[in-house]
Amino acid sequence: MSPTIDLKRRVLEDNDRQAAALRASFAASGTLVVNMISSPGSGKTTLLEATARDLAGRFTMAALEGDIETERDAERLRARGLRAYQILTGGSCHLDARLVARGLEQAAFPAVDILFIENVGNLICPTSYDLGEDFKIALLSTAEGDDKPFKYPAIFARAGAVVITKADLRPHVTFDLDTVRSQIAALNPGAPFIVTAARTGEGLEAWYGLLTERLEAKRRARGG
Amino acid sequence: MSPTIDLKRRVLEDNDRQAAALRASFAASGTLVVNMISSPGSGKTTLLEATARDLAGRFTMAALEGDIETERDAERLRARGLRAYQILTGGSCHLDARLVARGLEQAAFPAVDILFIENVGNLICPTSYDLGEDFKIALLSTAEGDDKPFKYPAIFARAGAVVITKADLRPHVTFDLDTVRSQIAALNPGAPFIVTAARTGEGLEAWYGLLTERLEAKRRARGG
Repeated sequence: MSPTIDLKRRVLEDNDRQAAALRASFAASGTLVVNMISSPGSGKTTLLEATARDLAGRFTMAALEGDIETERDAERLRARGLRAYQILTGGSCHLDARLVARGLEQAAFPAVDILFIENVGNLICPTSYDLGEDFKIALLSTAEGDDKPFKYPAIFARAGAVVITKADLRPHVTFDLDTVRSQIAALNPGAPFIVTAARTGEGLEAWYGLLTERLEAKRRARGG
Repeated sequence: MSPTIDLKRRVLEDNDRQAAALRASFAASGTLVVNMISSPGSGKTTLLEATARDLAGRFTMAALEGDIETERDAERLRARGLRAYQILTGGSCHLDARLVARGLEQAAFPAVDILFIENVGNLICPTSYDLGEDFKIALLSTAEGDDKPFKYPAIFARAGAVVITKADLRPHVTFDLDTVRSQIAALNPGAPFIVTAARTGEGLEAWYGLLTERLEAKRRARGG
């Protein structure tokens, strides 16, 4: 085995151990954990801003924000009343379970119903790193084009749901929803496919419905 | 030094050696080499389609297309008459000098005036890998938001020029050009800053002007 492949395997095994510990702690608190993965600028933070506004009365929520640099995303969410903590990765292109564990310790959030983990903007690197989440969301904005699932298949195959963002831009870009839908059907049959536009509100109820259903299922599974 | 950091250093040193060999060969042929880096879906291939159409009579050109999966981008460019060869990275989030050298060998392009290397869609990983290029271009679409240079500073600091794409979407998105301009001025003072929209033609002459000027400077430097 090459030294690179061997090291990568050891790093991922170490991450999996840390993620298992996180998952046990999220099970104990009954917190639904969503790991959000997309390209830079596909609208993860904007979707969370809308979610913070619309679900504040229904659930307690918090967010861990992963970025290479700047506190900007955590500040945007705190301005909407969401508990948010910024994790700077020091140049790394993804969060890992150790950074999440350390971030949670420093954030000292109270127990919440839903924890969002907004990963570093990147369709590739975050895919292999388990963060102890219940499921990953792959987001894709209509401005990025309808060829992306087949070009970046790993994340679209592993996601627990696919969320299309910026649907309001469809009149101005080349983006065929059926093309994307059929790529997802091939990579990840049965994955929920939700089309949203945070600016207009399109599809947000379906997104909230998914969160609610997954949280209730998790609570039922632990008999809560 | 940690095993991870030590391995990363050795990988980059090895890449730098390979890149130096590529650079020497591009110097010998007088080929201008442009390494294009951006998020997925920011419009690198679309800019190259327009470039192939508009500069075909002025320069000979070719493109190496880096992707995780699919031959789609090379096919799009060949449909526009550009020589294009697809490099699949086998899951890696960036091209490296070895992949470029092997791709060039297999592509067997004739000597061209300009070689475009379209890197894997990723604002982070490709930054540290020298491909023997004359300069890197960092592209940013208006749909990605105006906060990206400070969030992904390494590539915007190292780029030989910054190209804004999809300027035609500005009426429909939140994107303040002056905000981006001032971030670039802080990270990379003096870097050319070109605002384009391949759909409408906006800014394309400035992009072609940059390529022409850099090619002429390279030819002058070798006394050609």
